Amino acid sequence: MKVDETRLLADLEHLGKIGLGPEGGITRRALSREDAAARAYVADRMRAAGLEVRHDEVGNLRGRRKGRDGAAWDSAVPVVMTGSHLDSVPSGGKLDGPLGVVGAVCAIESLNAAGVTTKRPLEVIVFVGEEGSRFRRGTIGSAAVSGHVSVADVLELVDPDGAVYKDALATYGDEGAAIPARAAAGSIHAFVELHVEQGGVLEAAALPIGAVTTIAGLVQRAVTFLGDANHAGATPMNLRHDAFLAAAEWALGIERGAREIGGGVVGTVGKLTVEPGGKNIIPGRVDAICDLRAPTPVLLSALDDYVVSSLHGIGEKRGVELEQQLLQRVEPGPMHELAIVAVQRAAAEAGLGHMRMPSGAIHDALHMAEIAPSSMIFVPSIGGKSHCPTEATDPRHLAQGVAVLAHTLAILANDP
Amino acid sequence: MKVDETRLLADLEHLGKIGLGPEGGITRRALSREDAAARAYVADRMRAAGLEVRHDEVGNLRGRRKGRDGAAWDSAVPVVMTGSHLDSVPSGGKLDGPLGVVGAVCAIESLNAAGVTTKRPLEVIVFVGEEGSRFRRGTIGSAAVSGHVSVADVLELVDPDGAVYKDALATYGDEGAAIPARAAAGSIHAFVELHVEQGGVLEAAALPIGAVTTIAGLVQRAVTFLGDANHAGATPMNLRHDAFLAAAEWALGIERGAREIGGGVVGTVGKLTVEPGGKNIIPGRVDAICDLRAPTPVLLSALDDYVVSSLHGIGEKRGVELEQQLLQRVEPGPMHELAIVAVQRAAAEAGLGHMRMPSGAIHDALHMAEIAPSSMIFVPSIGGKSHCPTEATDPRHLAQGVAVLAHTLAILANDP
Repeated sequence: MKVDETRLLADLEHLGKIGLGPEGGITRRALSREDAAARAYVADRMRAAGLEVRHDEVGNLRGRRKGRDGAAWDSAVPVVMTGSHLDSVPSGGKLDGPLGVVGAVCAIESLNAAGVTTKRPLEVIVFVGEEGSRFRRGTIGSAAVSGHVSVADVLELVDPDGAVYKDALATYGDEGAAIPARAAAGSIHAFVELHVEQGGVLEAAALPIGAVTTIAGLVQRAVTFLGDANHAGATPMNLRHDAFLAAAEWALGIERGAREIGGGVVGTVGKLTVEPGGKNIIPGRVDAICDLRAPTPVLLSALDDYVVSSLHGIGEKRGVELEQQLLQRVEPGPMHELAIVAVQRAAAEAGLGHMRMPSGAIHDALHMAEIAPSSMIFVPSIGGKSHCPTEATDPRHLAQGVAVLAHTLAILANDP
Repeated sequence: MKVDETRLLADLEHLGKIGLGPEGGITRRALSREDAAARAYVADRMRAAGLEVRHDEVGNLRGRRKGRDGAAWDSAVPVVMTGSHLDSVPSGGKLDGPLGVVGAVCAIESLNAAGVTTKRPLEVIVFVGEEGSRFRRGTIGSAAVSGHVSVADVLELVDPDGAVYKDALATYGDEGAAIPARAAAGSIHAFVELHVEQGGVLEAAALPIGAVTTIAGLVQRAVTFLGDANHAGATPMNLRHDAFLAAAEWALGIERGAREIGGGVVGTVGKLTVEPGGKNIIPGRVDAICDLRAPTPVLLSALDDYVVSSLHGIGEKRGVELEQQLLQRVEPGPMHELAIVAVQRAAAEAGLGHMRMPSGAIHDALHMAEIAPSSMIFVPSIGGKSHCPTEATDPRHLAQGVAVLAHTLAILANDP
């Protein structure tokens, strides 16, 4: 299937200017003016691609292409869906989200150009608020579609400035009636999401396509280390209770634990503050957050247990008190062979090297997998970079991803 | 010698209210309104104790008691000096500095009450800007007295807000002509400073008095670790360049190095920031400062070499780039037996347990030792706490420190 690479890059370029900051990063918070502007652009692109456009109760934008029975929105035949999000992390890149949105529109256009019709209708969806950088949670739009959270709960979400979701939604630019967000049982035949890998695995393997087999689960814990903030010159080494050294030992232990457990688990301490922070004062308090990921619940618990139990030994040895709190645990989301195999077949038919792989990051596909056979198509991230202005993918890989998406949609929408 | 403990505690209490913040800490930046108010109180106390009060070119406050030749400021006989500072770290305690100032005034009053006269004049000095929490350097007043820095250079110091030292000095409340700051050669017979230990050594030894034998030297280095800020979920452990783990390994290495080298050396990483600081982003940059102390130049270099060389191995192993910069190196300052022995004798005569010990912290005595036989009298810090609102010493120990100071002054001002 031929992909209009120029069109694809122009779309990404256009969206990449909405919310662009002076440092080169893109900031589009969910339901913000920038988010609305990006979504309005995509709605126009959907219409240009012949899609019938609607919006749902939580603000997801949805465009349908009719199936062979001639119906788009009123078909009794289950739909094949694809899509991603347009909101970003603060100062993020131009691919995380948008590729899976405009890539989906371009894939539809490739099907149109090739004269491919499908038994089942196709739907391109733009999920609201995937990143969780505004409201208390991420993957809002897909959680509402899957029923993981109720529409009522979504509408009452509050951002740190006190703005309520439903009020922000009222200024989001939607006209006319909204369709229900939650999918009716059995109404979705399959879901597939095109996304940049955000890691360096495909690049290291020199392969353009990844077929995602599972979305790793997540545990995040906040830990506070309480030591004694004494004078760095006047306190002998053996009389210290250094909160930072306790945290340092813990973080290195997480790395060791993740390597020992293996099986694709990862653990990170990405947020950490040292107090009082004087250059000549022994740290008295450290607040840290660890982020643990694993492809199965068993491995996730194994890493989490390791991390929690190592805390106690360190605290006792160093005379440092510990407080810890589970921030969240998200169970791993296995993808479905129906969809995974469709991605593999599509890549093979396009003559592209591919591999089965887990996703370390959470995506909307996690929730869609709760209600329909799902998978994701990954394309390589240069240097594994993501969530930053230097997030980039070789344009050839972007177009190859869209080609595989178009093939995959055709396969899933026509399979028996 | 009897000490008026009530008076001493009332003085400390009074000063402890000047610059007191809502969190219970004291903030008196050098030459600030609060610093000036504290100094004015002490000037009054000096006069009440019969001292002849002057101020010098950099703002040091100086009160003299005449020697047996009847002269205070115009004596040809070398003076015995004592004193400390009134400025504080941000949100500091009420003893670091003030004890050595009002303790000195109380010691003079004890000598007065006991009818002790001395061959040599006695001088109580309040050094400006010991803490270095406003201008680019600390121990300003004593460095000017010793000639370690020129008066001209002091007057041109600039604080982070762009305020120039000499302009701040003009609003410091001094009237009349200033005397030269720099001491004439041979004009000081000895110097002794009373101070809280700021560590836990005396408390652990259950001794009320320390006679300081050396002031530890100091090396501070700023180190930047540059890794790759990738997605914490999507980046396998073996593809990471985690700037924080490199810094953690380095900090734990400093602890190990200090313990291995021994001999009283200490090393601390007290200031450290992690960027970008997202809980799901691998740290791409860490800025840290290490603070290394040792009682001799050889030990200081040994620890510093260990710390610098460990950096390279860690950077190479983890693929993390390093930038480092020497912020300062201050050579250790040995005290003088004339003064150390006087402190020991005074403690023994007062029937108080004592030990010889190094000072891990830097004090004005470091510079005074460059031009005159010097030592310090340490009293225990409860829990080793200092530079914080909970800095405290048993009142009995405070009074014992003042008694030993009075004895020491009498010994040094009357010795042959």
